[in-house]
Amino acid sequence: MVGITPEGLREAHNADVAIQADEKVEFKKAWADPESGTVFCLSEAPSADAVKRIHERTGHPADEIHPVPVVA
Amino acid sequence: MVGITPEGLREAHNADVAIQADEKVEFKKAWADPESGTVFCLSEAPSADAVKRIHERTGHPADEIHPVPVVA
Repeated sequence: MVGITPEGLREAHNADVAIQADEKVEFKKAWADPESGTVFCLSEAPSADAVKRIHERTGHPADEIHPVPVVA
Repeated sequence: MVGITPEGLREAHNADVAIQADEKVEFKKAWADPESGTVFCLSEAPSADAVKRIHERTGHPADEIHPVPVVA
């Protein structure tokens, strides 16, 4: 979303958080580059599909979802 | 890096951290998907180029670097 503002990102994030329990997802954090419109979102979830469904319902479907079980 | 292990990610991350001061970068966290080999890395840095130079010197050049000034 090119030109995304802190308020816009917070609003989108809050919309996800508001329904996350339906899919047992926990959204942790979101980062955005207003210039390219790229948004990264980190969550704990039972599956990629669970995350996909939440983002679809809140109107900002994810282009990519990557499981990241390895952390440093 | 397909098949990346927690130890492998930590080693790569530590190599970045060891020289990060040269470019005034601070690496915060790294996440990896061993299946696809995708690695995501979050840092505070004066520029994307500074991050690029560190990753090049430690032998794992970044395919993409996205400034993310907006956070939620």
